[in-house]
Formats: sequence, structure tokens, C-alpha cells
Amino acid sequence: MDIQDLKAKNPDHWMRATAIRALALDAVAEANSGHSGMPIGMADVATVLWSKHLKFDAKRPDWHDRDRFILSAGHGSMLLYALLYLAGDEEITLEQVKNFRQWGAKTAGHPENFMAKAIETTTGPLGQGIANSVGFAMAEEILRARFGRKVVDHHTYVIAGDGCLMEGVSQEAIGIAGRHKLGRLIVLWDNNDITIDGKVSLSDRTDQVKRFKASGWHVQEIDGHDPEAIDAAIEAAKKTKSPSMIACKTHIALGHAAQDTSKGHGALTNAEQNDAAKAGWGWNAAPFDVPADVKSWWEAAGSRGAADRESWEARFAELSENRQAMFNRMMSGEAPKKLSATIKALKKQISETAPKVATRKSSEMVLEVVNPIMPETVGGSADLTGSNNTLTADLGVFDDTNRKGRYVYWGIREHGMASAMNGMALHGGVRPYGGTFMAFTDYARPAMRLAALMKVPTVFVMTHDSIGLGEDGPTHQPVEHLAISRATPNTLVFRPADTVETAEAWEIALRQTGTPSVLSLTRQGLPTVRTEHKNTNLVEKGAYVLAEAEGKRQVILMATGSEVSLALAARDMLQEQGIGTRVVSMPCWELFEMQDEAYRKRVLPAGPVRVAVEASIRFGWDRWLFGERGRREKAGFVGMHGFGASAPANVLFEKFGITAEAVAQKAKDLTEGKWQPDTTV
Amino acid sequence: MDIQDLKAKNPDHWMRATAIRALALDAVAEANSGHSGMPIGMADVATVLWSKHLKFDAKRPDWHDRDRFILSAGHGSMLLYALLYLAGDEEITLEQVKNFRQWGAKTAGHPENFMAKAIETTTGPLGQGIANSVGFAMAEEILRARFGRKVVDHHTYVIAGDGCLMEGVSQEAIGIAGRHKLGRLIVLWDNNDITIDGKVSLSDRTDQVKRFKASGWHVQEIDGHDPEAIDAAIEAAKKTKSPSMIACKTHIALGHAAQDTSKGHGALTNAEQNDAAKAGWGWNAAPFDVPADVKSWWEAAGSRGAADRESWEARFAELSENRQAMFNRMMSGEAPKKLSATIKALKKQISETAPKVATRKSSEMVLEVVNPIMPETVGGSADLTGSNNTLTADLGVFDDTNRKGRYVYWGIREHGMASAMNGMALHGGVRPYGGTFMAFTDYARPAMRLAALMKVPTVFVMTHDSIGLGEDGPTHQPVEHLAISRATPNTLVFRPADTVETAEAWEIALRQTGTPSVLSLTRQGLPTVRTEHKNTNLVEKGAYVLAEAEGKRQVILMATGSEVSLALAARDMLQEQGIGTRVVSMPCWELFEMQDEAYRKRVLPAGPVRVAVEASIRFGWDRWLFGERGRREKAGFVGMHGFGASAPANVLFEKFGITAEAVAQKAKDLTEGKWQPDTTV
Repeated sequence: MDIQDLKAKNPDHWMRATAIRALALDAVAEANSGHSGMPIGMADVATVLWSKHLKFDAKRPDWHDRDRFILSAGHGSMLLYALLYLAGDEEITLEQVKNFRQWGAKTAGHPENFMAKAIETTTGPLGQGIANSVGFAMAEEILRARFGRKVVDHHTYVIAGDGCLMEGVSQEAIGIAGRHKLGRLIVLWDNNDITIDGKVSLSDRTDQVKRFKASGWHVQEIDGHDPEAIDAAIEAAKKTKSPSMIACKTHIALGHAAQDTSKGHGALTNAEQNDAAKAGWGWNAAPFDVPADVKSWWEAAGSRGAADRESWEARFAELSENRQAMFNRMMSGEAPKKLSATIKALKKQISETAPKVATRKSSEMVLEVVNPIMPETVGGSADLTGSNNTLTADLGVFDDTNRKGRYVYWGIREHGMASAMNGMALHGGVRPYGGTFMAFTDYARPAMRLAALMKVPTVFVMTHDSIGLGEDGPTHQPVEHLAISRATPNTLVFRPADTVETAEAWEIALRQTGTPSVLSLTRQGLPTVRTEHKNTNLVEKGAYVLAEAEGKRQVILMATGSEVSLALAARDMLQEQGIGTRVVSMPCWELFEMQDEAYRKRVLPAGPVRVAVEASIRFGWDRWLFGERGRREKAGFVGMHGFGASAPANVLFEKFGITAEAVAQKAKDLTEGKWQPDTTV
Repeated sequence: MDIQDLKAKNPDHWMRATAIRALALDAVAEANSGHSGMPIGMADVATVLWSKHLKFDAKRPDWHDRDRFILSAGHGSMLLYALLYLAGDEEITLEQVKNFRQWGAKTAGHPENFMAKAIETTTGPLGQGIANSVGFAMAEEILRARFGRKVVDHHTYVIAGDGCLMEGVSQEAIGIAGRHKLGRLIVLWDNNDITIDGKVSLSDRTDQVKRFKASGWHVQEIDGHDPEAIDAAIEAAKKTKSPSMIACKTHIALGHAAQDTSKGHGALTNAEQNDAAKAGWGWNAAPFDVPADVKSWWEAAGSRGAADRESWEARFAELSENRQAMFNRMMSGEAPKKLSATIKALKKQISETAPKVATRKSSEMVLEVVNPIMPETVGGSADLTGSNNTLTADLGVFDDTNRKGRYVYWGIREHGMASAMNGMALHGGVRPYGGTFMAFTDYARPAMRLAALMKVPTVFVMTHDSIGLGEDGPTHQPVEHLAISRATPNTLVFRPADTVETAEAWEIALRQTGTPSVLSLTRQGLPTVRTEHKNTNLVEKGAYVLAEAEGKRQVILMATGSEVSLALAARDMLQEQGIGTRVVSMPCWELFEMQDEAYRKRVLPAGPVRVAVEASIRFGWDRWLFGERGRREKAGFVGMHGFGASAPANVLFEKFGITAEAVAQKAKDLTEGKWQPDTTV
């Protein structure tokens, strides 16, 4: 690659793109940390995209009908920050660029969506961006179908690297996008042949062009340093009805001593080499300095979309007031006012009829009343629709022939589903929920963590939540997955005991705007334990007294989900023996923990024996057994101590000793001072 | 598909294959649970494979040079059980088949490797089998290169379904196999167009043939009910030097009322329909009955490999005694005798020189002395070789040109790496370890769980294990991942404090034969805390007194990994104030928990204030703060309360309050009765 040729061929473009290169080089050198090579290599592609195609208004980065730009190769964050600063974003200022990767700066090592409005999603864990982008593109299709092209009409652009394409989740994303012909999705692949360990060929020889084509994508191959080729390819991509991948052949760290090497992937901090690179680029400005003409050209590019935005605002104003209000509410993530009354009505009906159903079925009953009043919900399942009970009557199925469909058959792709749901939530206007078996939390885990980190209210419907799954055996029986989700910051984990608690949990989940929820639901039928109707949402407190002790309170039984009815049965046995027993239902630890000390103490007073029962491992329970005024010699746990087994569910509960009898016996023993250690795992 | 045509064309084959169909139908109906359609659909493929190609000896299912058969579509477990029973396996008897999915039976809902010798791997979580198989095939290549074709010369056959191919991990597996030209790997794809939710086309339109070809696979397309075509395709696949995929067009639940429907995927329990299917198949035997001629033909097929095995034994006996012993030791998974002395020598040297290094570097120092004496180790990294410090001087790089290489550049494929490592360990003869950043535990998680469930001693080298990672920010900073691995049954999680503990942890990990290990290692440099050499492996106890209190013991500081030196510094501050302080290093909770009560009590006696410090969330720590004779009002935690941030590591420790000063202050406050609640997450 002859730099002089590139410069000579299109000197204006060269300097504009090189402003990105120089800023990236300077910021990484200043931080002594980061990734210089990718922004340098992709500067040409980004410059053409942002100045000629990307619909955005730098002063209004949250304008709803903007194109979305996803930097899936998140380690190249300086590319995004340089673009935003150059284009005139008001949050990513020069000061921020200079403070790249420093405490308190918005310019974090990897882009974080909550740092600045213009950062659409958090990337860095590779493959997430490209999988998020599928959700962005689906949300756009759904909203366009619903509100019309005058109001919703944008593209989703992605820059992805070799790492993104090697991660398995990319295949799931490619498959989903191909199946649903997401024509507004355009992926620009930074085809630079380099990974951290060396040449891509060390670990992969996949022909990416053929791979994308195999899933129905439109694919082009271009020189990623040729602005005209880039422009033409994006133009062509916008015209196709399939998702598009543009393979951009680039040179990582172009023009630097580290060009085309894995060293060029990382932080280029050698001052001499950096100076030499700048000299070769023809870049004479001081560090962090951008010549006025280049900066003003970029600012013009950044305000290019202002007129688009204004005309969009005019078109939006033509909608009926109702439609405007609906659109604005959906984009805001606010739940409809009717939600509360709808949930209350269902609770009342359930507490009266007291059905015995699995909580996965309870969840369906909730969705049956919620989906009609919340047009923003988009449901789905990773090929377990009938098991997860996620499809309700009125949703319709989303695909290339029905963009108004609100249900997605995600296929056997838990990770792709979870990541795309995050993308939908980030796009706004839709509220995604999706189901799989709870044990497959493992598959969805990278995206579940990012939902928490990104503060998006994705709802993960995790059914078959214990050995109650039965015959499918230990591969499918979660024992550690409640602990995994509970250990994750900013995640609400609900394990409701019956339909009433399920309804309350859903209400809370659907009101969240910054926190994902995990619903842990049973396969097996459970009795209704909340047979006395209360308008108050008791799950909101996280834990509450479900049944009070009669006589002197000697025992507190703590339980969640399917084990609550078992605790109630144990209470009956204990009460019969004159042992006053309280049952505390604990559907959401996180919410209980947020209550004040006084409330927690009321629910879990010091003194009585405590037995926790959950068909899961003990990990985490010590917080409630001991941490809240409990005593080791007066506490016990009934649950799992390792993996499950394959057998009918009732046999398993019996064999693993998770029975009302076992709970009652343990409580009785403890009241008599017969403490025994439990193994934890 | 006209069943009568199939029967007429090859009546003998038909009846043999239909024995599988009938057994699967009967067993699932009897259990009222399971998956009937897949075994029925793939019976022809399996019959040809097992009777004409698969090298195995039913009476010696653990013969080292057998071909490996992996049922990646594990829900079709009755296919495997039927094959094993028919072929004369001594563990999977008719009794077991009749007890399909019942408590205590070896015929679990999904195949479990520890149930019977002939079950190579645990499958069910889709995609795992095909990804395991890559490891099986790599192990075969490595051992063949090392011991020669006379001793190691077998194939790995996989039956995979649409679910396996939709899971992202399959792409990682396909990429690895294609890159390394694993010619002994043959995947038979059950191309039946059906998933649980309906037609595959609901969720996917990927052209699998093109997809596999894009990664360099040899691909054939056949009628999966035509025994001659199946035979010819397998024959051709065995001859190619690339991995092979045979797309077998089949009809799920062939000949049953549920044929070609998603209903056919599940449990077919309608007696009338089942009888009708059998009648159509021309199968007149009673339930679970197999006509004598068919059974004896199958038993002949099952003993077909006995001669192969015997001649292999003869060839093996020709090896030198040393080579035989080495081979046998490597296959047994037993560590060499020299390991102990090697670790001791390193420990001695380290305790004398007391280097300040990151524990990821410590790990490299251990591997530098271990790899030369353990020829069975195979290292690797998911494209973070220089960061994970997993490559040592003498390993050599495994690829298609160097089968003796003991290091794998896995690419950006944490999940594929972990799953393939499990396959290697299951194959035997190699002992895999592989690295990535600890936060990417999330990506590898499904395979990490299966390692624990399958009881294989895979070693996961997880570096950059806290905010000590620094500038890369919260996406890359694990805070909940120690809890995630600790919550997993049958997993040893080591967080060593220095090089000595790292050496001890590695020694324990390398001695495991039935438990995977997670090594949680720092990016940042740590002082040597074990400066007094002891031959005893102290990590083996899980936790131990690293520094005793001087004077009255008022405080116990508990810490792991990078926070141990911080606890020691806090101890100095406290001792200066006359507060006697013990420091307990807790490198492995699981091992500490396995110690007897008396030891645990010696380490954590009742009475003193306890402060735990770990740059991670508190989840799980309450076990040690309170559960072991601690008291709430005398306990505190210094660590993370949520996600991290992007900044230099030292700034982060300061800003998040994880400092010696904070630890000392908290301990002092507690000794003075100033208890304050800690938020957990």
C-alpha cells in the first residue's frame, strides 16, 4: 500500500480520514493504553460512511430516526470517539479525547452506551455488536411497519472485525439477519488479516464472503482505503433487500511501522515511530490538534443531518396526537398506565380461582393480558415456544413477510436471541422478552451480563428452572443458575411461587427502564399460594411474610418459587407439632436487599430457627441464613448439593431430599439444638 | 418417502435399522418422555456407520484405538442406547433400555459420559458434541504423530442436528476443524428440516453445505435413508484430508403419523399411532423385543472390531516398555512422579528470590517447568497468548503441518476452545489447558459447566481477573465471575496470591482426573507473599494462616489473589496500632470446604473480627464471614459492589476503596463496635 498514492489520489479525503488516525494515535499514546491500529485502518471507511451516508445530527444524537452506528470491534473505540469529536458531538469533546481511558472520562476503553447519547451500545466483548445490530435492525423494521416510513426510516451500520466474525454468536446473528432479510443492516468488515496472536490464518481460513452468502447476505469486496469504492459499496448495500456485508480490505495501522502486524493491533506508543507515521501521512499538526479546515469540514458533516431531522420533526407532527403520544411513550420505555389495573385484575381472578399451574404457564397467562395493552412488547423463544409459553394469541410472527409480527422464532440461538434483544431495547420503541430453558442461561450469559452493564430492561424468560424439569437430566437442570444471575450486578432475578407472584414479577420487570430481569419459572404445576387478593405488589419488597406463625414463632422457613408451597406444607407439619412457623416467600433477593433495615428485620427477626429451601445450590443463601441476624447453630438449608439426575420430577425431589418432610424435620431438629453442618456444594 | 420401497430395496438393512426405531419408540413411550423422531430418522445412517465403518469392540468399549462416536444431537439418546444394546454393550442392557430416563438408570435423558464406558461425552446442550469432537480429533492427531499410526489410528464420527448447527459454537468448531484440516473428523448431519418450533425455515435459511465449504470442509449430500449412499459417502469421507460433513436428508419420525413434523421431534406416546408405525415398518415383534436373527446380526457387528483390537494389542506390545508406560500413563490421566519435585524446586527458588510478578506470569513460570516433564499437556489461548502467558518455549504450534505441536491458536473462540478442550480430555492421552480473560468465562461457560458435569480435568487459565485489568474497563473486568465458577459444582477455583501459590494450584489442577480447574490470575504484578519455603502444598487445604497475629488476636483478614498482599499491608497497619491481626489466604474455597471442621475452626476461630477482601462482589463470602462461627456485627467486606470502570488499575483500586487503608479501617472500626452494613451488590 503506497500511502503517497492514496494521498495524491484524493488529498482532501486523505486529510479528513487522517484526522481520525492522528487523534487515535495521540489518545492511545497519551493513555499509554488502547488500540491504535484499527482506527487507523478503518479511518477511510468511517470517513466515507459518516460524511456521505450516516444519517445523524451531531447536536441531537438521540434523534429517533437517526441511522444507528455500531462499533462491534469495540477495542477500536478511538475511532468512534474521534468521529464524535470531529463531528461536533457535545459530550465527546476534545477534553474527553485527551482523557481517553481515564477515571471519570466518557471515553472509556471500550464504548459504553451510558457514557454518551451518541454511543448506541456497549461493545468490546467481541461479536456482541454485530448481534446487537440484528436487534436494532429488527426494531427498525417493526416500528417502520407500525408507524410508517415517514416516521421510521433508518439504517443500522456496523463495523466488525475478524474477532467479531470468529465468535460463534456472529453466526447466530448472521443466520437471524439472513432469515428475516434485514435489508437495512449493513456490516462493514475490517478485513485486515490480523488478530492479537498474529495473522488470522493462524487460527482461521474461513472464506467469510462465502459464509455470509450461505446465509443469504448480499456481499461486496472492496479496497477499504479507496473512498470511491467505499461510497459505491455502501450505496449498493442500501439498495439491496438483503442484509449486506462489505468486506473492506484494509491495512491495520496503515503507514505506521507496525502496519500489517499484530503489534499494530494494540497500543502504539513509540514516539519516534508515531512521529514517523504522522510524517508519512503528511500530518503536521501538533498532538490532538486538527487543522481548522479539516475540523470545519467534519462539523459540516456532523450537522448534515440537521435538515433531515427537522423535516422528520415536521412529518412526525403530522401524526395524530394519539399516535405521537404512543410513539413517544414506546420510545421512552415507560409502561402504559393501564398496566397496573390489568395486573391487579388478573391477580384478583387468580386468587379467587386458585389454579394449579406451572409458573411458565402463569407467565403465559400474564402475557395474554399484557401483550394486548403493551404494543411495544416483542416476544420470542430460542426454539422452545411451547415450553417457554412465550407466544400469545395476538402477537403475530415477525419475518420478512410480516414486519408487524411481534413474535420471533429465534431458532436454537440463545446467545443471538439475548444479544439481539439487547439491541432492540437499545434501539427503543420495543420491549423484548425471550425464553429458553434456565440451564441455557449459560449460552445467553455474555449478553445477559451486557444487558446489566448497559442498563437495558431486557426480560429473560427462563423456564424449567430446577430438577422439576425431570427426565431431561442434569444437562438441562439448572442448579447454579440462580446464583449466577443473582451474582450479576444490576439484574433482578425473580423466582415466583405462583401465578400471583408471577404477575407481580412481570409488572416490575415491565416497569424497568434500566435493569434487565430474569424470570425463573417452573416446568411443573404449582398450587396458588396467594389466595387472598391484595392490590399491593408484594414482590416489590423482594421478600415478605406469606404465612405467619401461630403461637410462639420458633421457626422461619424461607423459600422461593416451587419450594414455597413445600415450605407451606412443612409449616403445617410443624404447626401440628406446636412449633410456630412463619413462611417467608423471597421471590427477588435484590429487591429485598434494597429495603431498609427495619423492613428486613421485620421479615427476618433475630431469634427463630431459619431453614431455607430452594431446589438449587446453597451458594448465596448464607446472606439470609446468617447475615441478617441469623445464627449458624440455628440455620439450615434444604436444596441441591451438586448436579441433578434424569428421572421423573417427583422422584428427583424425593431422592434429593427436597420435601416438606425434610424441611420440617430440619427445622424441628434445629429447634431442639441438633445442628448439623450442611455441605454447600 | 415410500416406506414400502425402502423395505423392498434392502429388506435386511431395513429390519436391522428398524430394530433401533422400534426400541426408541418403545423406550420413549414407556418413559412417557424423550425424543422418538430423531432415532427413527437417523436409524439408517447409524446402522451403516456402526456395522460397516465404526471401529469398535462392544465388549471393550474403552479400547484406546476405537473410533469415537459422538451423538451431538443428544436428545436422540435412544439412538445411542439402542445401538449399544443391540451391539452387545455390557452396560447398556435391555433392562437399562426399559428403564430409559428413570432414577438410577444409565440410560439418562441425554447421554452422560460417566454412566457407561461406551458413552464418549455428555451431550444435550446443543452444539457441544460437535465442538467436543474437534478436540477428540485433535487429540487423535497429536497422539498419532507422537506414537505412530500403528498405535493411534482412528476416526471421530459425529451425528449432529439442525440445533447443533444453529448454535454459534458450531461455527467456532467448524472453523477450528477447517483450519487444522482435521481429516479424521466426519460429521453426519441429520438434515430433517424440523426443529421444536416447526420447520427449520421458520428461523433459518442458511445453506449449510455452502457454510461448511466456506471453512474448508469436504461436503457431500445424500439420501439419509439409502444404505448404499450412506456407505459410499462415509467411505469417501474417510479418504479426504479435510474434515467431512455428510448432509443426510432424512425424515424425522419416518413412517409415523408424526413424520416430518415438529411433533415428531418429541415423545411419541400415542399407542395407536405407534402400533400403526410399527405395522408400516413391518415390525411385528413385541415391545422391546428384537427378532433373534436381527439381534445376532447386530452382535456380530458389535464384535466386528475384536480382531482389530487384538491386532492393535499386538502392535502396542511391540512398543518399547518405556513407550508403553508413557502411553498408558498419559491415557490414564495420571500425573508423572516428577511433578511434585519439579513444583517444589520452583517454589523453593521463588521463595528465595521473591519476584514481583503478575500471577499470569507466575503461571507461565510454572508451565515452563511443567510442560517439559508432562508431554501430555496441550496449551492454547483464545487469541490472547501474550496476555494469558500460556505458551512456553518447547511446545511447538499445532496445525495441519505440525501434528506434534502442543500449542493451539484457538482464535477468538472461547467457547469452541473450552468445548474442544473437554473433547481432548475425554479422548484421553492429552491434558488440555487454555486461556482467555476471566470476564470471558461468560463465553466459555456452557463448556465449563459441562467439564464439571462430565468430570473432566480441563484447566481454564483465566487471566486479568479483576479491576486490576485497568483501562479496558467494565466489559473486560470480571466482578461476578469468581462467584459464577465457585457456584458451579465439581469445579476447583484457584485464586493464588503469588507465584508459590500459583505453582501449588497448578500442581493440584494437574493431578485432577475428575474435576476441572479455573485459575484466576492477575494482570498486575504482585509481591511474593510466601517467602518462607515449605515443601507442603498449602493451597491443598484451600485456606491457611499466612501471617499470625502478634499479641492478642483481635482481627482475621481473609483474602484471595491480588488482595492477599493488600491484607498483609493492612495487617501491618493494624499491628502498629496494637491490634493483633491474622491473615488467612483462601486460594481455593472448595478445598477449604472439604477440610474437616477442626481444621476450618483452627483457621477461622470464633471471636475475632473478620474482614474479607477480594476485588470482586461479595456474593458467596457470607459463608466465611458468618457461616463459620462468624458474627454479623463483627464482620465486614471490602470489595466491589457493582461493575468496574475504565482507568489505570491503581486508580481503580483507590476509587473503589479496595486499599490496605480501607481494610485496616474497617477492621479497626469493627473491633470498636462500629458495625455498618455493607451493600452486597
